[in-house]
Formats: sequence, C-alpha cells, structure tokens
Amino acid sequence: MKEFELIALLKARLPTHERVVTGCGDDCAVLDLGTGSDHILFKTDAVVEGIHFTAETEPERVGHKALARCLSDIAAMGGTPSAAVVTLAIPGNCSPDWVLRLYDGMSALARRYSVAIVGGETTTLPQGRLISVAVVGKVQRDQVLHRSGAQVGDAIFVTGELGGSIEGHHLDFEPRLEAGRWLAQWGHVRCMIDVSDGIAGDLPHLLTASHVPGAQVHASALPIRRAAKERSRRGDQARSATAAALLDGEDFELLFTVPPSKAVDVLDRWKDAFPSVRLSCIGKILDEPGIWLVDANGRRPLPDGGYQHFKEYVATDAD
Amino acid sequence: MKEFELIALLKARLPTHERVVTGCGDDCAVLDLGTGSDHILFKTDAVVEGIHFTAETEPERVGHKALARCLSDIAAMGGTPSAAVVTLAIPGNCSPDWVLRLYDGMSALARRYSVAIVGGETTTLPQGRLISVAVVGKVQRDQVLHRSGAQVGDAIFVTGELGGSIEGHHLDFEPRLEAGRWLAQWGHVRCMIDVSDGIAGDLPHLLTASHVPGAQVHASALPIRRAAKERSRRGDQARSATAAALLDGEDFELLFTVPPSKAVDVLDRWKDAFPSVRLSCIGKILDEPGIWLVDANGRRPLPDGGYQHFKEYVATDAD
Repeated sequence: MKEFELIALLKARLPTHERVVTGCGDDCAVLDLGTGSDHILFKTDAVVEGIHFTAETEPERVGHKALARCLSDIAAMGGTPSAAVVTLAIPGNCSPDWVLRLYDGMSALARRYSVAIVGGETTTLPQGRLISVAVVGKVQRDQVLHRSGAQVGDAIFVTGELGGSIEGHHLDFEPRLEAGRWLAQWGHVRCMIDVSDGIAGDLPHLLTASHVPGAQVHASALPIRRAAKERSRRGDQARSATAAALLDGEDFELLFTVPPSKAVDVLDRWKDAFPSVRLSCIGKILDEPGIWLVDANGRRPLPDGGYQHFKEYVATDAD
Repeated sequence: MKEFELIALLKARLPTHERVVTGCGDDCAVLDLGTGSDHILFKTDAVVEGIHFTAETEPERVGHKALARCLSDIAAMGGTPSAAVVTLAIPGNCSPDWVLRLYDGMSALARRYSVAIVGGETTTLPQGRLISVAVVGKVQRDQVLHRSGAQVGDAIFVTGELGGSIEGHHLDFEPRLEAGRWLAQWGHVRCMIDVSDGIAGDLPHLLTASHVPGAQVHASALPIRRAAKERSRRGDQARSATAAALLDGEDFELLFTVPPSKAVDVLDRWKDAFPSVRLSCIGKILDEPGIWLVDANGRRPLPDGGYQHFKEYVATDAD
C-alpha cells in the first residue's frame, strides 16, 4: 500500500465533529472554538535525524527548522501562530548542551513571531533524534486560505526562489508569515499552499483540492535559487536547475492563485510591501487535464505522480 | 545534568507572551485566544516502543494509550478536549495494517469524547515506533484547575485505584474527563494533577507549585488496585502493594485537594455522580516540610526526590 492510499484510508476513518471547519488534507486544521471572528489553526510536523537533518547539523538550525516548518503551514492558511509545544525524542546519552542549543534555535524564531513555547515532552529514543512540534494559531474566519478555490484561468504565483534548498535554505528559511497574512488580507487570493515537496509535488494538491483539471508552468518564469543553479553547473546532481526548481522540495515558499484580472495588481502591491522578496507569476490554471511545462521547445506533460515520475522525466533536461 | 535541572534551565529560556495564562509546568498550557468565557488548553505527549509499549502490544491499545495520556492532562485541568493531531514515526517496513489498527484504537477513544483527529504527519524512523499526539481543548476560564492552589490543612483526594498499572491498566485506562469536569464545576477543588508518576512522584509537584511545605499520606487509605496486590503476593516485584500504589506510575488518576470543610461534601456528591468509581481521601497538606507516610507503626518521611529515592526506601516495606 502506498503512503497516499494509506492516508486516504485513514482520513475516511477519522472522527470529526461540527467544530472542525477543515480537518486533514490542508496545510493546517481549522477549528471553530467560539473565538469570535477568529478560527483556530492547528498543525503538527516532525523532523528526524538522517532525513531532515544530520548528526552534524548545528542544533540551533535543527530547532529553527523544526518550528519553522509548522509556521510555514500557518503562513499558508493566512494565519498568525500563537503557541507551540514540543516533543523531543533523543538517546539517553544526548548532551544537555545539544538540547539547550536546539531550544535556543527554536526560541529565537519563536520570539520573532511572538510564538510562545508552552510545553514539551522529552522521551528516550534508542537511536537518532526526533523533534515533533505542534502549533496553534489564529486566522480571521473570513480570511482563511485553503488549498481549494483555484478556478480555470487563475494565474499561479510563487514567493521567493526555488530549488537547491539542500545547500542550507532548508535549515535557515524564514517562514512566510508576513507574506501569508498580507495575501490573506489583500482578499483576492483564491487558494494557497506552502511548497514543501516542490512545485511538481504541491501544485497537484491545489488542483485536486480545487477540482480543476490542469495547469501550465512556464520554465522561464521559475524563480531559481542561486544554489540550484550552482549545483547544476557543478554537476552535483543529475538534475537541471529548472528541474531542481520544480522538484527539490523544502523550499517553504507560498504557492497561490489569483484571478487573472488581479495578477498585475498583486505584483504591484507586493513590490511595495516586500521589496526584497521576489514574487513570480509562473503559470496558469487550465481547463484541460495534466500539468504542463512550457519552454522554448513547446510544452511537455509534467506527470501527475509528481516527484517520482518527474524526476526521471527531467533528470536530463537542459537548463 | 539531571532531567529536572535541564527542564528548569529550558523553562527559564522559553519565549512567552501575554496570551499565555499558563506555560510549561502544568498538565496543560492555558492560552487566552479571545475565546469568550473559555481558555484554550494545549498539550503534547508521546509514547515510544520499548518504553511505553512493546513490539507485541496490540496496535489498537497503543493508539488508545497515545491519545488517552493527553486526554488525561486535559481532564486534570478540568477541561474538554476538542481536537488532536498525530505524529507517527515508524520504520519503512511497518505494515499498513499496524497503522490502521493504531488509528482504530485512537479513533474509538476520540469518538467517545467528541475529539476530532484533524491532522497527522507520518515520518520514517530507522528503529522502533513513536507516536506523538497534541491536543487542544477548552475550559471555562473561571474553572481552570492548576497544580498550584493547595493550602495547609487541605484534604488530599485521589480517584480510582493505584499501582500495578503494568498489568494492563496503562494501555486501557479511561481518561477521567467526566470526573475532571465535574470537579471543576463543583467549584471547591483547590488544585489538581493527573497521577502519571505515582503519588510519590506527583504529590511533590502539587506542593512545589502551591508553595506549601509538606503533606502526609495514610497508607491504609491508599486505594490499591487488585493487580498491584496480586503482583505483590506473587512476588513479581520486590515491592509491597503499598509501595506499588505510591510508586508504580501510569495510573492516570486525578489527585486533588479540597478545603477540609468540603471533604465530606465531595465524597457524598461523588458517590451520586460516579457510583462505580472510587474516590479516596488519602491524606492532608501539612505546615511542616516533607511528605510523610503514616501507618500503624507511626510515620516515616517519603523523600522529596520521589521515584528514585523512595523506591529504595519502601522496597522492603511490608504491605
């Protein structure tokens, strides 16, 4: 059974109730707990040694990443984080210094966004380290941004730059909280997701949730991170910079759509609001099935399967 | 550095803000997120294979326990749980059936208390399994029960029975949510905690949080679970049944104090409300330092250090 099939089976079985506005399947759960004009956002995420960081990674950066991943999900809903709790699973011989430095990294990030760290659980793991963080936040109920809502013709935007995150961005990225709130308040964003599995992995989530058939992405419009270009030039991976921008994962940028009539408006306003952060219109929602990559040679399908299939497909693609 | 010293160091460094009513150091965090007459409760906890369950434990019971531990903390604040998110860290070869059965156990418990399971994260762990659960709940702001609040002279009560949890109770216990809410609504409970580390481990937390010097516990008043008596008789552990009731841990009962003038009242009302659940007055808060165990031979100090020291102390104690 594949992971997605298992998740689908699980989701169908999970208990819910009328206070759940949005359950599994979006960047955060949305709860109506009687908080006046606000909904509560709720999210958990984990980082594991050997997968999301290594034994050599500075613990401050591990702590930063563990919390930042959750905050990125709060950002993708247009919300504001309030508080976090932490489960730390470490071997019995893990040094207290490592733990303190981990919390220092987490706390520094938390302070910047007024997130309180209000609880934690430390337990023993025989091998390796795991940090699981849960965050609650708030969002104005008329400003929640979901993965669903895209319409045919919508322009597709992405913040920041993509690809090559492995060079360091995945440990140091700043969650796009201000941008997420700004977009929610602007009022014309149709749907939003944070890009953790690459455009190729996450754009399909927007399409599926929105029940729209397809999209096209313009290769020349992809904002490619310098690290991805350098890796490609050095031949560090059998992947072009374009492929890296579509596939690399852990970008933690915001991917969203707006009606075509608002595309110029959002770009103009964005420049004023976030002069140092790129915002790129990378494509549009189509009325035909499939996700297409458009470049000077025409267009080619970007298979639905995302990561696995597309990796093979574009591995030898020229930049 | 001992775990408690590390936690103390950490707590002093963690970011907080004005919306945090109670941060680390109680059974749940309490947040004021503008929810009218309610505060939000927030808690995380984890179970790890080899510590809290074994490779042979039925996955439904693992799921039950993983969620029930958090719900017990919600109960100890007098609250009502609303929603849970789950981080599941399992080896790549863990069978989908195990995962589905884990969620079945968790979902059955969640349904009984109208808890929605609204999100999850599954990640790979090289060895063993870990399930971390975070829960949000609500509590009326004038009914929150903290660990602090005990006063000299207060009567000390505990719900249910203690000891021998390892025989099965630790996997199957029902979190005392109805009792917790009932006690909060009754209005005369001074402080409350859930007993996860034995009376010897958790009573000191009430004293410290309440800034009261000591307490005495009457051995003859301890409600001892049959499993603890049987283990003691069989000689399964070098521990008397009394010691088991004080030390065994994972009882997940509620330990609380009430003013002496209300002791009879709570016992009377309890019998009507929960005829099948024991409620025992096991001692009182003292104006002198130390925790004392009183039996037919007089009284002996129950050292502050809780578990470790007391284990040695009472290991050869007669039942």
